Amino acid sequence: MHYYLGIDLGGTNTKAGIVDDQGKIYCKDSIKTFADRDQYEIVHDMGTLAKRVIDACGIPFNEITAIGVGAPGTSDNVTGELIFTGNLSFRHMPIRDEFHKMIDLPFYIGNDANVAALAESKAGAAQGSQSSVTITLGTGVGGGFVINNRIYSGFNQAGCEIGHTVVVAGGEPCTCGRRGCFEVYSSATALVRDTTRAAKAHPESILNQLILDNLGHVDGRTAFIAMRAGDPTASAVIEHYIEMLAESLANVINSCMPEVIAIGGGISHEGDALLLPVRDRALARAFLAENIAKPRIVLAKMGNDAGIVGAAMMAMNCMEDGLIG
Amino acid sequence: MHYYLGIDLGGTNTKAGIVDDQGKIYCKDSIKTFADRDQYEIVHDMGTLAKRVIDACGIPFNEITAIGVGAPGTSDNVTGELIFTGNLSFRHMPIRDEFHKMIDLPFYIGNDANVAALAESKAGAAQGSQSSVTITLGTGVGGGFVINNRIYSGFNQAGCEIGHTVVVAGGEPCTCGRRGCFEVYSSATALVRDTTRAAKAHPESILNQLILDNLGHVDGRTAFIAMRAGDPTASAVIEHYIEMLAESLANVINSCMPEVIAIGGGISHEGDALLLPVRDRALARAFLAENIAKPRIVLAKMGNDAGIVGAAMMAMNCMEDGLIG
Repeated sequence: MHYYLGIDLGGTNTKAGIVDDQGKIYCKDSIKTFADRDQYEIVHDMGTLAKRVIDACGIPFNEITAIGVGAPGTSDNVTGELIFTGNLSFRHMPIRDEFHKMIDLPFYIGNDANVAALAESKAGAAQGSQSSVTITLGTGVGGGFVINNRIYSGFNQAGCEIGHTVVVAGGEPCTCGRRGCFEVYSSATALVRDTTRAAKAHPESILNQLILDNLGHVDGRTAFIAMRAGDPTASAVIEHYIEMLAESLANVINSCMPEVIAIGGGISHEGDALLLPVRDRALARAFLAENIAKPRIVLAKMGNDAGIVGAAMMAMNCMEDGLIG
Repeated sequence: MHYYLGIDLGGTNTKAGIVDDQGKIYCKDSIKTFADRDQYEIVHDMGTLAKRVIDACGIPFNEITAIGVGAPGTSDNVTGELIFTGNLSFRHMPIRDEFHKMIDLPFYIGNDANVAALAESKAGAAQGSQSSVTITLGTGVGGGFVINNRIYSGFNQAGCEIGHTVVVAGGEPCTCGRRGCFEVYSSATALVRDTTRAAKAHPESILNQLILDNLGHVDGRTAFIAMRAGDPTASAVIEHYIEMLAESLANVINSCMPEVIAIGGGISHEGDALLLPVRDRALARAFLAENIAKPRIVLAKMGNDAGIVGAAMMAMNCMEDGLIG
């Protein structure tokens, strides 16, 4: 059996686990990232975490084949550099070289949304599919495109940033500098923004009362809760959210035509209340002739383990493809 | 040397040519399609045209390896069916079987925009690229996505309909049933619509005078001509056209991250007046970290031969991949 060490570098936590070639996690551990530190300190701690997980796991070191890291931002898996991250301080970090000083294993790196999509393809909601796009509805909207069980990240390894495709030209401002991106209508952040606006515009609403009862706290669940309590203001917020998500998913179908679209991230915990209307609308408006097989739109399955498993599976793919790590 | 017969089935003309494995055309011919006829009659004439081109070419029949057809709409290259076309009457036409009755050669079929993109990848503006998207600015907006010299058309062979990704939710109505698609802002049809509207709103403009001088005729060149004559009304029309095209091309980059975007179709004949501002704006707003290689946005090169060459190259790929034809 071959095992791989997967590391999920996040803005808050850094997680690591030992994963087999089927995507099963044998043991895992995590540390706080403390994102505002020097990039070399963060990488050093990642190495210490990796060694700790290997030691704790009990699997002989020579059965561990490679290390994979899923990181935010842009990395270069040829040179082994973490080129740029938004929330963290990484700038042209030679992370493969640094890891080689600590652990003598082939080392690979990819984008966190891309490896999460690979995890869904290898062991999750898109298992067995020819192609899939995994959309993560979190602080932002992450997107990863997998074809034939390989991440498709384009000629420069910088794709696919599906969350930054504009669906409302001139619309709400996005952190990427454009206006009207998928992300600014379908992220948890967008839903919080629209929930807050609607509550202010309708002080008499159940939604506003719910927020007051929670001392002003609003999150991605707030409008769903008020909707279930029968509040029309909240229903309108959710209706708009679902409508915009369906519009963007129809765009994903028409541009990428994946066999499976897996929806993950915090908002996906709403389950069928979100999934069913979004699926119906997205498939109804996608460009699909009558007798053509339709993409399956489903909830993602890998949850918080997507990063670890995906990073490990990415390392496995790189080894199979003979890439230098 | 291997030769392939490429057929470009269009709403007005049907073209056929003998093409070598480098994408060079040796001879070609065409007939009127007469689109409102029975689908079997059209296919019979396609076969007659194919035989005529083979006879006229002088290349021995046993050096012609396969036939490829690029057709509008949706086809199934596994079953050999032309499933559905919008402008033509095809509905579940067993076109491979019909061709086999006429010509004893392996037969393959694909979407016309997809094979045109393959032609650019094999022998045109995207030659040598790892991946490319070819966008055709014509009556509609056609899109084809090529990865590693193979058409990417998704798990159901029905992708990629990039022209039907929404960029203005709730915007202008599109023939696909949605509103605000790439196509309804960037096709020649869209430019004619906006040119006509602007001329009506500004009867004093050079643009309006130009249209009156042409007995009311408007086409994709009209606003460009009036702009070059210094007309601010026409300049505003072109500015809007370029802005929307740049927005959609930035979406293509963020969703598909191709190494090359090739722009073809009637409007692309405007050359640098179109290409340069669109390229600058699309690259400036795409999600690309500073030191990341950027896609090349260029004019397509294959012109009216794209369909014949692409259909032939598709047939070549299918033979290489061992697909049953």
